[in-house]
Amino acid sequence: MVESSALEGIFGGRLTLKAELFQKTGSFKVRGLLNKTLKLTPEECERGVITVSAGNAAGALAWAARDAGVPATVVMAKTAVPAKIEAARAYGAQVELVEGDLMGAYESIRDERKLTGVHPFDDLDVITGHGSLGLELLEDRPEIDTVLVPVGGGGLISGVALTVKLLKPAIRVIGIEPETADVVSRSLEAGGPQKLPTARSVADGLAAPICGTHNYAVITQYVDEVVRVSEDAIIEATRLVMSRTKLALEPAAAAPFAALLEGKIQLQGLTASIISGGNLDVSKLVL
Amino acid sequence: MVESSALEGIFGGRLTLKAELFQKTGSFKVRGLLNKTLKLTPEECERGVITVSAGNAAGALAWAARDAGVPATVVMAKTAVPAKIEAARAYGAQVELVEGDLMGAYESIRDERKLTGVHPFDDLDVITGHGSLGLELLEDRPEIDTVLVPVGGGGLISGVALTVKLLKPAIRVIGIEPETADVVSRSLEAGGPQKLPTARSVADGLAAPICGTHNYAVITQYVDEVVRVSEDAIIEATRLVMSRTKLALEPAAAAPFAALLEGKIQLQGLTASIISGGNLDVSKLVL
Repeated sequence: MVESSALEGIFGGRLTLKAELFQKTGSFKVRGLLNKTLKLTPEECERGVITVSAGNAAGALAWAARDAGVPATVVMAKTAVPAKIEAARAYGAQVELVEGDLMGAYESIRDERKLTGVHPFDDLDVITGHGSLGLELLEDRPEIDTVLVPVGGGGLISGVALTVKLLKPAIRVIGIEPETADVVSRSLEAGGPQKLPTARSVADGLAAPICGTHNYAVITQYVDEVVRVSEDAIIEATRLVMSRTKLALEPAAAAPFAALLEGKIQLQGLTASIISGGNLDVSKLVL
Repeated sequence: MVESSALEGIFGGRLTLKAELFQKTGSFKVRGLLNKTLKLTPEECERGVITVSAGNAAGALAWAARDAGVPATVVMAKTAVPAKIEAARAYGAQVELVEGDLMGAYESIRDERKLTGVHPFDDLDVITGHGSLGLELLEDRPEIDTVLVPVGGGGLISGVALTVKLLKPAIRVIGIEPETADVVSRSLEAGGPQKLPTARSVADGLAAPICGTHNYAVITQYVDEVVRVSEDAIIEATRLVMSRTKLALEPAAAAPFAALLEGKIQLQGLTASIISGGNLDVSKLVL
């Protein structure tokens, strides 16, 4: 947990940050993907695993699989952040770069090569692994009133909401997703998990085109609210939070602060915001 | 102290980082300038203080003076990092932006307005204040073999060398400065404190055009070596350290890693590197 009196002053409330950017592989994703890897059968381990990812789940699965001696393949977009592609390769994964339909490519490679598919968020072992973050929040700061969670396909927020709400139902759990990749908001509005034809955002980690079915079920039951934020607000929030906290967060992690900047949510009591990752494209830092 | 197994792998040795970017005002400078402010006489406090700075000393003096109820004026270059100018103003300092001779402007404003001059590094109270960093290093990691210190005018390294060498003379203290702002190396070569006509570096915090006389005296006695690094290496090191540690360090703080990249120094035993500050120009982060 990291504190910032500067951010508290700017947003007019009490804040604490869960610094998941310092996790191995630079994001919270190792929680779920390590849990999943540890639950594979010997046969599944031998066949090898495959996932599809904007980047953070790829790096996390590659790291967890290498640790367990399991061959890993990851399907990523050609346009993924180069450092995220390099990281997955550095952890020993075979990286398949794809243009267009990522999920389609993932499914066909999985079936062709008889690999064990690991969905990056729509998987109960992944979700409960992410739930460990909620347990740590309650252990470190039991007096929390609200948790702000960046939302892509719904993996992190379903894990966190599950543990937090089961143990302390009064805590508000609020999700924040980009206007340009708002599949969870659309799913809640439509009454069932939706797919978007495309999903792009400066917060590349949140640009999931689908909401998972398990994620949808948990979110409808346990999440208080999901709000949308603009790309401009995400960019402004990334710079603001980096300059005030000195944490090299990626844009996805700044989404909750974009919502505060745009007045979509207000601070009440003590709010924990999850700095979900730090896999910035540092080549974009002009020096 | 922050650890990074990724950086240890890249540089082939044991490393620990002193994360001064998390200090109030975003750099180590508060150590010395707070110490100085606390030692002012009531009369000096009433007259108000003035310093001259690339930015971090300005913010630190502004913060310390505001805390003590002392009016502060800071002389900065018009080309200073905008966030550093804003920070000094936000802490309540009167900022005088100057083109050309900063030291001259500082001296004339000091004399005209009868302010108490606080030299940003050539001052024994500032130096001993910075020395507290050395004490903390020895307390946290008494087994350290080497300390790497970014060098501008010599303030930080003289404080750190003083405390570290007095308590543990076997520890190596190595300074790193930009080739384009190498006043301390030149002073050591010339046998006395030098002045440069101009000093510019991507590591703006290290672009001091003078080596202090007190700093020179301490450095000749207690510092093992000062090495120069190129601008390109500083840029590469900034991106590398940010991507691997997720610390939003400023280029000055990356200078020791530039020296490792260029093979100017090698890791031996356990090395502590001082991440001196995090006042990056975040407007230069292209998202």
